[in-house]
Amino acid sequence: MADRASETVFTYVAPSLKFGDGASAEIGHDLRTLLGPQGGRRVLLVTDAGVAAAGHPARVAEGLVAQGFEVTVYDETHVEPTDASLARAASSARDAGPFDALVAVGGGSAIDTAKAVNLLVTNGGDVLDYVNAPVGRAQAPSQPLLPLVAVPTTTGTGSESTAICVLDVLAEHVKSGISHPALRPSLAVVDPELTLTQPAGVTAASGMDILGHAVESYTARWYGDFEAKQAGQRVPFCGANPIADLWAERAMTLLSGCLREAVADGSDRRARHDMALAATFAGMGLGNAGVHVPHANAYPIAGRVRDFRPADYPDAEPMVPHGTAVSLTAAEAFRFTFDAAPERHLRAARLLDPAAADRPDGPDVLPSVLTAVMRDIGIPSGLAEVGYGEADVDALVEGALAQQRLLATAPKPVTPDDLAGVFRASMENY
Amino acid sequence: MADRASETVFTYVAPSLKFGDGASAEIGHDLRTLLGPQGGRRVLLVTDAGVAAAGHPARVAEGLVAQGFEVTVYDETHVEPTDASLARAASSARDAGPFDALVAVGGGSAIDTAKAVNLLVTNGGDVLDYVNAPVGRAQAPSQPLLPLVAVPTTTGTGSESTAICVLDVLAEHVKSGISHPALRPSLAVVDPELTLTQPAGVTAASGMDILGHAVESYTARWYGDFEAKQAGQRVPFCGANPIADLWAERAMTLLSGCLREAVADGSDRRARHDMALAATFAGMGLGNAGVHVPHANAYPIAGRVRDFRPADYPDAEPMVPHGTAVSLTAAEAFRFTFDAAPERHLRAARLLDPAAADRPDGPDVLPSVLTAVMRDIGIPSGLAEVGYGEADVDALVEGALAQQRLLATAPKPVTPDDLAGVFRASMENY
Repeated sequence: MADRASETVFTYVAPSLKFGDGASAEIGHDLRTLLGPQGGRRVLLVTDAGVAAAGHPARVAEGLVAQGFEVTVYDETHVEPTDASLARAASSARDAGPFDALVAVGGGSAIDTAKAVNLLVTNGGDVLDYVNAPVGRAQAPSQPLLPLVAVPTTTGTGSESTAICVLDVLAEHVKSGISHPALRPSLAVVDPELTLTQPAGVTAASGMDILGHAVESYTARWYGDFEAKQAGQRVPFCGANPIADLWAERAMTLLSGCLREAVADGSDRRARHDMALAATFAGMGLGNAGVHVPHANAYPIAGRVRDFRPADYPDAEPMVPHGTAVSLTAAEAFRFTFDAAPERHLRAARLLDPAAADRPDGPDVLPSVLTAVMRDIGIPSGLAEVGYGEADVDALVEGALAQQRLLATAPKPVTPDDLAGVFRASMENY
Repeated sequence: MADRASETVFTYVAPSLKFGDGASAEIGHDLRTLLGPQGGRRVLLVTDAGVAAAGHPARVAEGLVAQGFEVTVYDETHVEPTDASLARAASSARDAGPFDALVAVGGGSAIDTAKAVNLLVTNGGDVLDYVNAPVGRAQAPSQPLLPLVAVPTTTGTGSESTAICVLDVLAEHVKSGISHPALRPSLAVVDPELTLTQPAGVTAASGMDILGHAVESYTARWYGDFEAKQAGQRVPFCGANPIADLWAERAMTLLSGCLREAVADGSDRRARHDMALAATFAGMGLGNAGVHVPHANAYPIAGRVRDFRPADYPDAEPMVPHGTAVSLTAAEAFRFTFDAAPERHLRAARLLDPAAADRPDGPDVLPSVLTAVMRDIGIPSGLAEVGYGEADVDALVEGALAQQRLLATAPKPVTPDDLAGVFRASMENY
């Protein structure tokens, strides 16, 4: 038998996938297949008002009705869900239900809300019963969840592939998550045509989220470098592994040829198609490997926003879009993690920008590729541009340290001082 | 909207996966997770006598019992299942059941038998009710199947990833299949340690099966080159596509560094690990793209065997191992399909053998790489060596033509004359 002191096992789970222009027209058929010929016919469609205005949820609902389903639409998803918004959505679903299946049409907020509603209507209890410890009580569901079909309309979140729901816990001013294999959608339907209406600013920010998923899961701690786990200790995110690598590498190759193009011309169907494919692939990788420092940092960067209002987002509330928040410290985070896995950092840089092969090896190669992308697609230059300064560093570090689940996937130990250094160096990236 | 005359959509479905040395020790835990805390505890473990003699099924059963399951072992799987052997297995399961889940430990025969048993005990009827038309009645199951965990002990079949059960229909002297998404295992547990006892001849033949899965799914007709399908017309095998490509390419790269090594030294743990990974990856690709001419030809090559008895296989019955049967016409089949997708054939050759990059482009590159592998690992040189001659060509063509489901995935139309040419040129490959 092999030495069992180090981990020898990795796991891989992903939703079934239907991908391509027009795929979202077939959801009625797909849901009937999922539920079986004798299955139920009451569907809760979860979306948000902005996505609903673009007409996609209505078209999906029509397709469901044509296949004999009864559809109830919930379009009050809060963009960046909170414990309160999830509780409201679940309460609404309980009043209108029971349902036999859920369909989520939208960005990560709609899909994550559908995951939480699914959990709460099938297993009861409060949101905080299920939120990761120590913020919540980290209960596992005891009852099976309903089939959930995820239809992303934003290319980037990866939520259609993951077993996690991200939320703001309002009383504690902290972002946290609910994480359990049962939350993962049964089927992801990715239709690039649904993203043609996505504004440039949203494409840019969510593109940086895709990039973060790919590069972070590729540079995450190798699964075999963890201590061996018992069966009951396994977690959805097991670190970089041979399968997550496949997805991450191809996602980076795709991004090198479509991210700038999709931001520059949203009607470029080839670029939209490849962005949707890159988002899907990066989600498949991250959904098993996990992400690390840039995503941990993104929680307090988004959570502590004061008055930054990005272009192309609804301007009712100040916000740092998730993908922007991920990108702002990414260059410095990868400069910090470089020495733990130099080959992977260099290869990531060269997949994202083949011209980087001409540059001498070193910790600056990947950061320079990332900042060039940020500059070219109009991402803020750093933390200063979204309103943070030296005085905020301690609070940002504290917020990132709360994401121990993510920091544990970093390729090297991360101290508070390390994080403070990353935040300080990220005030201006270019 | 895009032009819908050509297909724009591809699908991707795969089992959940647990991979690595020692993974098979955790199946009790995994099955409890699949069934839920309130789920049942009666398990049917399907294996064959040869695998049982190696001790793996007993160890898996012990692990299940330790987690509170009751295990019934069925070890009478027929190597190369027949309609009669599947009916016997189902009958035995009905007598001993009901069961809450199935675990298959073995090669493709055990896993395919478990798929058929699962179908028959949950949905009733006879084997031929479900076999692909025109051999059978191609009924779809109306009732849900039980969770099935597949534990391959032979690196190669891909059965753990696919939604198909291959069988000999005795009365018609033909190989056919049962194909439905519900047949796909819920979880594949791939433990390279279980393959350490696999004899060299089995490693070689099943290695050629892996190679066939990878190269055939990579050179299959591109999904976008089919006519657009309606939702209800979609089939598990949708042709080459961006996701199947990922798996196939990496499988070929892995094979280039482990197939000869694993055959030469079965105790080479690195080679065994990479063979198991290559088999898994090739299975993930083939399970969605499909295979074509070499696999179609393999059916009559195996089905019409007279007295060939390969080394390292039980010698009770004459047989051409499936992987050997796939390989015997592969070189000529790819010479025939070359002009439909030259770049893919050349890239496959160069992934399998980087030295092939030095050879001038052309239809001979991939065949020469394949025949070199066959010669080096002791695969028969061609159809003549397993007992076929010119007089058998018509019958072989007829048998391959019966596999229209596979021929439809070829990158170009395949006529009876084309097949006859491939068989004739495959009497001696080296």
